[in-house]
Amino acid sequence: MSKVPFITRLAVIGVGLIGGSLALALKRMRAVGEVIGCGRNAADLEKGVTLGVIDRYSTDPIHAVRDADVVMLATPIGAMRSLFEKIRDHLAPETVVTDAGSAKANVIADARTALGARFADFVPGHPIAGTEKSGVEAGFADLYSGHRVILCPQPETRMSALSKVQRMWELVGAQVEQMDAVHHDVILARTSHLPHLVAYALADVLAATKPQSEVLRFAAGGFRDLTRVASSPPVMWRDIALANREALLTALDEYLAALNTIRAAVAAQDAAALEKIFARAKALRDSLPPRK
Amino acid sequence: MSKVPFITRLAVIGVGLIGGSLALALKRMRAVGEVIGCGRNAADLEKGVTLGVIDRYSTDPIHAVRDADVVMLATPIGAMRSLFEKIRDHLAPETVVTDAGSAKANVIADARTALGARFADFVPGHPIAGTEKSGVEAGFADLYSGHRVILCPQPETRMSALSKVQRMWELVGAQVEQMDAVHHDVILARTSHLPHLVAYALADVLAATKPQSEVLRFAAGGFRDLTRVASSPPVMWRDIALANREALLTALDEYLAALNTIRAAVAAQDAAALEKIFARAKALRDSLPPRK
Repeated sequence: MSKVPFITRLAVIGVGLIGGSLALALKRMRAVGEVIGCGRNAADLEKGVTLGVIDRYSTDPIHAVRDADVVMLATPIGAMRSLFEKIRDHLAPETVVTDAGSAKANVIADARTALGARFADFVPGHPIAGTEKSGVEAGFADLYSGHRVILCPQPETRMSALSKVQRMWELVGAQVEQMDAVHHDVILARTSHLPHLVAYALADVLAATKPQSEVLRFAAGGFRDLTRVASSPPVMWRDIALANREALLTALDEYLAALNTIRAAVAAQDAAALEKIFARAKALRDSLPPRK
Repeated sequence: MSKVPFITRLAVIGVGLIGGSLALALKRMRAVGEVIGCGRNAADLEKGVTLGVIDRYSTDPIHAVRDADVVMLATPIGAMRSLFEKIRDHLAPETVVTDAGSAKANVIADARTALGARFADFVPGHPIAGTEKSGVEAGFADLYSGHRVILCPQPETRMSALSKVQRMWELVGAQVEQMDAVHHDVILARTSHLPHLVAYALADVLAATKPQSEVLRFAAGGFRDLTRVASSPPVMWRDIALANREALLTALDEYLAALNTIRAAVAAQDAAALEKIFARAKALRDSLPPRK
């Protein structure tokens, strides 16, 4: 008699790094019976089947979610609202819906509007894990091991849905914690979203510098590290920036102010001010706990 | 009969990551007879002797350079002018002086004024290598292996001095190339100096964010990479920022403009503009040659 898996049928909408890694991790734990992939590109989904990330697929979300007990939305945030609308009337009574979007208040508002009565079965989530790589071939089963996953349950959220999603993440090695969605967005604007814009802007300055060949030859290790996340998918980060617009603008303005203070100190040749700012920044960086 | 080493006596003024690594690399190659360390802190220099980085030391540059055939200045740039003045009249006739400062035009101007007739024996240099670590214990013999070293010889520079320094760097595995000093400063302002200020400013924004504990807990991998170089020594980078002030201000203004363009697109919810900028930045980052 084979053991019944924790999830009988998982539908992953958006089979990239995030969705693909979850599927692989659950499969490794024998915690999922079948994984149905969904996306717009059939060739990518075929690749997902070949790589063993998903078992079968449909390019139609309505077909993909049929009889799934868990539906994971791992698409760019901007695609989620219409997906919620499409799948709402095709979910089985016990189906739990969750997402992996990097901004939460906006996704929750979209879900509340689009899912209607099924909003109670939606568990907003955000795994704090990833790399700059993307696509189905970027997934790996260890991605979430030891990483944090933030869940932002709402007053309407069914306890059983929350438990299911929490347990799913714990099975793949993540540490789950709950957080207020607005607070999540404020913190992540600073620790993740702002750094991505900072990196995109830096790479963009280099892209405009001539001669390009010399820029590339003399790009030191610091520049490489600073711009690594600028390799992240443009559409995904376009959507995050727009979804977390207010908190991000506040963080951006704080950053622009910090940089303008440094600029003024350089212009005024204020050695003491520069040393003080650099020392304060170094103290923050040196206080980070070791990388997971 | 033992082989005569390429350098009989090397004086390293500033025994940190850069100077210490050069000493270790030359020793490993048996390319140096004796290394004399010089610095302001005797305890650090004692540690350098214990670690085998230097053979003996003096806190007085005049004593340290006596009978050295090569003198390497690896201090923060702001300390170099007074060091040039101090050592000028105490160099042996054949002594070659070089430096490892990250900005070149300013160091060259200081050297031209302070070294007088001995300016012909000065070879301005910049090894494009390093880590965010500092201090004598940070040095390692492999630091320069496969890395570029830029030399900026001047019209006055003696060919024999240039050859000596070039060969020294080649012996420790570096690829040496020559470059105009002003051009060096313009390129490095973008590929190295600007990224450091960007990182310091980002870490400084996080330092000002409350609650600090949450910022540290949710600092994702991107934030870590983006701020790694903010652990670099504040005095060193204060001096680089001031020494390369003009080129750096230009680069900073380009960066502020790029970031303000992104800010405006976020504020205006201009999805197309954001996607275009992010894609352009990603293309630049993806085109970087593999890390050395």
